[in-house]
Amino acid sequence: MKLLWINPIATNVYDEPIRIYLESVKEPGTEINVVSFPPPGPTHLEYNCYEMWMMPQLLRTVRWAEQQGYDAAVIGCFYDPGLRAARELTQRMVVTAPAEACLRIAATLGESMAILVGRQKWIPEMKENVHKYGYKEKLAAFKVLNMGVHDFQMCPSETKRRILEAAREAVERDGADVIVLGCTAEFGFYQEIQKEIGVPVVDAVVAPVKFAEFLVKLRQLGWGHSKRMGYEGPPESELNSWAILGPCR
Amino acid sequence: MKLLWINPIATNVYDEPIRIYLESVKEPGTEINVVSFPPPGPTHLEYNCYEMWMMPQLLRTVRWAEQQGYDAAVIGCFYDPGLRAARELTQRMVVTAPAEACLRIAATLGESMAILVGRQKWIPEMKENVHKYGYKEKLAAFKVLNMGVHDFQMCPSETKRRILEAAREAVERDGADVIVLGCTAEFGFYQEIQKEIGVPVVDAVVAPVKFAEFLVKLRQLGWGHSKRMGYEGPPESELNSWAILGPCR
Amino acid sequence: MKLLWINPIATNVYDEPIRIYLESVKEPGTEINVVSFPPPGPTHLEYNCYEMWMMPQLLRTVRWAEQQGYDAAVIGCFYDPGLRAARELTQRMVVTAPAEACLRIAATLGESMAILVGRQKWIPEMKENVHKYGYKEKLAAFKVLNMGVHDFQMCPSETKRRILEAAREAVERDGADVIVLGCTAEFGFYQEIQKEIGVPVVDAVVAPVKFAEFLVKLRQLGWGHSKRMGYEGPPESELNSWAILGPCR
Amino acid sequence: MKLLWINPIATNVYDEPIRIYLESVKEPGTEINVVSFPPPGPTHLEYNCYEMWMMPQLLRTVRWAEQQGYDAAVIGCFYDPGLRAARELTQRMVVTAPAEACLRIAATLGESMAILVGRQKWIPEMKENVHKYGYKEKLAAFKVLNMGVHDFQMCPSETKRRILEAAREAVERDGADVIVLGCTAEFGFYQEIQKEIGVPVVDAVVAPVKFAEFLVKLRQLGWGHSKRMGYEGPPESELNSWAILGPCR
Amino acid sequence: MKLLWINPIATNVYDEPIRIYLESVKEPGTEINVVSFPPPGPTHLEYNCYEMWMMPQLLRTVRWAEQQGYDAAVIGCFYDPGLRAARELTQRMVVTAPAEACLRIAATLGESMAILVGRQKWIPEMKENVHKYGYKEKLAAFKVLNMGVHDFQMCPSETKRRILEAAREAVERDGADVIVLGCTAEFGFYQEIQKEIGVPVVDAVVAPVKFAEFLVKLRQLGWGHSKRMGYEGPPESELNSWAILGPCR
Amino acid sequence: MKLLWINPIATNVYDEPIRIYLESVKEPGTEINVVSFPPPGPTHLEYNCYEMWMMPQLLRTVRWAEQQGYDAAVIGCFYDPGLRAARELTQRMVVTAPAEACLRIAATLGESMAILVGRQKWIPEMKENVHKYGYKEKLAAFKVLNMGVHDFQMCPSETKRRILEAAREAVERDGADVIVLGCTAEFGFYQEIQKEIGVPVVDAVVAPVKFAEFLVKLRQLGWGHSKRMGYEGPPESELNSWAILGPCR
Repeated sequence: MKLLWINPIATNVYDEPIRIYLESVKEPGTEINVVSFPPPGPTHLEYNCYEMWMMPQLLRTVRWAEQQGYDAAVIGCFYDPGLRAARELTQRMVVTAPAEACLRIAATLGESMAILVGRQKWIPEMKENVHKYGYKEKLAAFKVLNMGVHDFQMCPSETKRRILEAAREAVERDGADVIVLGCTAEFGFYQEIQKEIGVPVVDAVVAPVKFAEFLVKLRQLGWGHSKRMGYEGPPESELNSWAILGPCR
Repeated sequence: MKLLWINPIATNVYDEPIRIYLESVKEPGTEINVVSFPPPGPTHLEYNCYEMWMMPQLLRTVRWAEQQGYDAAVIGCFYDPGLRAARELTQRMVVTAPAEACLRIAATLGESMAILVGRQKWIPEMKENVHKYGYKEKLAAFKVLNMGVHDFQMCPSETKRRILEAAREAVERDGADVIVLGCTAEFGFYQEIQKEIGVPVVDAVVAPVKFAEFLVKLRQLGWGHSKRMGYEGPPESELNSWAILGPCR
Repeated sequence: MKLLWINPIATNVYDEPIRIYLESVKEPGTEINVVSFPPPGPTHLEYNCYEMWMMPQLLRTVRWAEQQGYDAAVIGCFYDPGLRAARELTQRMVVTAPAEACLRIAATLGESMAILVGRQKWIPEMKENVHKYGYKEKLAAFKVLNMGVHDFQMCPSETKRRILEAAREAVERDGADVIVLGCTAEFGFYQEIQKEIGVPVVDAVVAPVKFAEFLVKLRQLGWGHSKRMGYEGPPESELNSWAILGPCR
Repeated sequence: MKLLWINPIATNVYDEPIRIYLESVKEPGTEINVVSFPPPGPTHLEYNCYEMWMMPQLLRTVRWAEQQGYDAAVIGCFYDPGLRAARELTQRMVVTAPAEACLRIAATLGESMAILVGRQKWIPEMKENVHKYGYKEKLAAFKVLNMGVHDFQMCPSETKRRILEAAREAVERDGADVIVLGCTAEFGFYQEIQKEIGVPVVDAVVAPVKFAEFLVKLRQLGWGHSKRMGYEGPPESELNSWAILGPCR
Repeated sequence: MKLLWINPIATNVYDEPIRIYLESVKEPGTEINVVSFPPPGPTHLEYNCYEMWMMPQLLRTVRWAEQQGYDAAVIGCFYDPGLRAARELTQRMVVTAPAEACLRIAATLGESMAILVGRQKWIPEMKENVHKYGYKEKLAAFKVLNMGVHDFQMCPSETKRRILEAAREAVERDGADVIVLGCTAEFGFYQEIQKEIGVPVVDAVVAPVKFAEFLVKLRQLGWGHSKRMGYEGPPESELNSWAILGPCR
Repeated sequence: MKLLWINPIATNVYDEPIRIYLESVKEPGTEINVVSFPPPGPTHLEYNCYEMWMMPQLLRTVRWAEQQGYDAAVIGCFYDPGLRAARELTQRMVVTAPAEACLRIAATLGESMAILVGRQKWIPEMKENVHKYGYKEKLAAFKVLNMGVHDFQMCPSETKRRILEAAREAVERDGADVIVLGCTAEFGFYQEIQKEIGVPVVDAVVAPVKFAEFLVKLRQLGWGHSKRMGYEGPPESELNSWAILGPCR
């Protein structure tokens, strides 16, 4: 199966690290490519306006991915930007995103999850997603690391120190029994952290890829995104006449 | 005060009708302009992917509006597209949208509202908004008119007939005591309908404009969108370096 | 337009201060009168039993206001006492109250509000109202100032100090991005506080007056309180035969 | 133990029928008196404004009851008017009301309850109470009998016919397994109805009296209404100085 | 009336202490027996797997109790194990359990309850029960005593000290106005504690017995557990053919 | 990987059909065995008391499965009996069940699901599970087929007819866009039904097996059931001393 990880940002600095990172967790038959968008443009999506700004490029890429024969696409940002739109625009390919994947997994692993975010600013939109996905009662706390997206990989030892501290507090004070890393740029830490604190730490890069592999298998049973109601897509004729989703890559 | 109504679609067919329509409901001191986007592009936003497609143009327009000295902008679609992003990007100008305005008004006028939508497809996203805004317990029902966005103004007598029938059923069978017209293209009907059924019918064009006028007055008290947390915007330096919000009109 | 602010307490000590206070925030065409009830009787409504005690006088006053040609009445207590009853008893005049107005405004300005109350005792009833109005998910915290209603204006510098401290804690520890002053007697402080902490501070006297002005304008569109269901009022014949709402002022 | 049933209406037509009705269900040691208020005044509380109108008389009566040595008072209206206020004003005596009692009982007897009300108008306020007491998820439906309060005892055979029809529909169509009669004036029917439909039918006169007897027994264990927070009452000195609760009967 | 208290554990160490304890709180006409199960087997139910392990013995005992003419059975564990199953298997006898009884009582006594549990491990299952019974909004906090079930009676002075400390914190910091002791083994403390902290402390042994006495009286009105839907039981023929509920004691 | 499907009933009639049925959907490397319990005992779990009756055998089997080196166990009943207990008792093996798996999948495939159950009796317990898992807002309706567990495979053409009718109604009248078959005995129908109605139909046998395969892969990343809080298990010493989980097969 072919899977596309989309970094919906205008920098490719994470493309190769994420591709390599995923090599060790993917199934043998999975082929993973990672793409991002050309600069200039936002190199992170900490603000909702940056998310929105990236939408046309993101949707064109999703559409292109299906045309290229990808079986799955992962929208690589924990806000899950454009997930409904992407599902409208695809027929066969499955699409998922980090928050959806992490939350469904975390809710199965434990009873009470904490989400570790970079900045307090991220919380309102993420909280809305937690509620929308159904996990309001399973949310122990958001914990703020006070780091921006690009800080996580700058100084890994400091990042690890903060994640560990926040995770410990989440477990001991907030009663969390599962930790979710609430940003795709927090990759590379979950294994060490979970060994140290003794509860599962769900990684926002690994989780959606595994979930996507799972969804592709379900797809083979005929269980794809329902094309009625919320994920019903527009008629091809409209899409074509408005030329909004032409070749992009 | 200066108010900009933005039809976030690539057609100007509704611009002048809406401008004229609003003349009779605005306050004397309000100056209203209506803009839309150049074709080709979606001429309606029945699909979430169309909403998302329009985001950069919408955000550029919001930004431009503030620079032009507008006091308020209304994003003219009942999905309230890009509302958080628009508030991030503005400092002084208030921004609102039809669902937010209609729901806050309807919840003040009665105890149980019904929302009249064009197609069943619209419901999941609108239901999410109803819940997000806090009115889950106030929602009697969504009623489906089985009309597309552009049908509403095509044959007004048929539209009126269907709205009247759905509104009656909402009141009599679903226990609604307020009706909300769940699409900006349903304009021109509320007065006749509310006279016939005897409960308020909230119009999705009039309501956000009145609500915007209200918000502008609050703004003068220092009560603008909070720039902390959810509506905190990105640094100007980032916006400039990425050239994402240059002059657009 | 004519607006009546009702202090539903048996003292007129706040009548003139509130009238003057409102002069600077009302619209030019608004004429505001302030009334209260004759002693002896409760001079504050910190207890639900005092609220209930005031009901007949409050309802008579609401009724009288409509007969006198008022366009709007504000019930001046953050518990919003008798709001449903008042709406049943009026035909044309709009009625609102501080909690309804403050919460609808605060939910539009930010994502997470804190309500500053005088005493812990007030919380259960106010929390019920927050839930009833639909803002459970938007409530960051109640903060207790440990002051009674009449303390707020006694020593304004101390009041300001406590409000500032509680507001700061709400923002920094509880993640609030809007502050609501949960008592009408907390008037006179919002401007200084919001300047110091940098998030909007919604005043419980100003907010319902601005909201009432807004509702009066909606009323002219035919959008008054729905007279079906919850706000349906009793037949005039019953009211007359029971002589319960005769002339009172 | 001494129990006072308060009909908070200005007619004594139900006093003696209810007293007699309760004779057969009360415990041997319970002594029950029934009081109402002198005319003129509302003879039913179908409107919230009537409820509110009755508050001072109701509270004076509750207070008087405690002074007279009553162990329990039941506020005899399914809107549970003034329950918080009454608990604030009492020290030793327990106070309850029909909705609270019926809902706690019904939630113990089954999984899904239907409430049979006289008119649709009653639903918004009663629904708020159902939510407030915690039984939102246990509510199958409100069923409307289309009868006013005074109709129920006018033509018992017609009342019975309508209750039976509504109860059957609630069970068969709405999935209810317990029926609650949502008005104290619906007394005298529950036994026949529950025999015919085979699920418990909770009577709004009997239930609060049995619940009150239960609460009195709990009172002897020290489990009375908590005088901290919501049911904390005002200082006696204030009550006295304002002369609001003098002798009334 | 005859009431059976079932300690669903394989030790009789609490049987006689609980029987004696209940003597002073039961009504004069109530006859109470206490049973437990023969060893070897779990002597506490801190783990859900122990609860589940005990089910057949518990259900056989419930069934046997009805056959022996008991009017009520109390399942003596705060997880309320097997309550639905027990109600399915009985026709006439009422069945209740500590959490159901304590929560219904606490919600009537105050506005905000805290539940004092032995270990953090107990919280997820108990929280589910609190939500299921409808008291999510009434829950101030779970407080952890850091004691196992068998510790409570080991050193009563230490237990009392910890309960008092946790109760105080619940009242002062978490805003609780009622305390619930979240384990049947926490018996013997409520009176002293409530005297010291001034809010009701609901005991998990006393509460379900009083609630059971109450339910038996309701049973005489025909208000037993509904045998439709959730508590509908299997046909006797099936039970017999599978020999699963033969004589057990 | 080795997976055990447990039919927690005292009949092996479904063992071989389910084993064969799963052959075509499992991954190549998965080895699936199916077990059930020896008669006499319940041959279906339509009643909660039957579920509870089966617990010790179920838990012994789960425990035995882990000792035998199984990587995953599926508890084959849509009530998800004993899921928490099973997770307490295992260290390495993952455990899941049909409702958990079906709901997480359905919530990813669409926006609004309908669950097709055999009898109305099943609804209260299943509704509790839907709420517990977080999908209250995603539930369009329960649809009742009026068939017992053993009827489904008796006359497949009739079963198919009823499923099709209920699914159609769910889609057209209730607005569902995903169908969930709410009983493991409804196997063998999903493919035909989803072809005919055009929305995914999630099968309660296939779904948990695919979900279990997914969880096993997550397990390899260290993401197993959290052994803190809800799934913390008892000490081995206790289990051994009480001899409750000895060899069983």
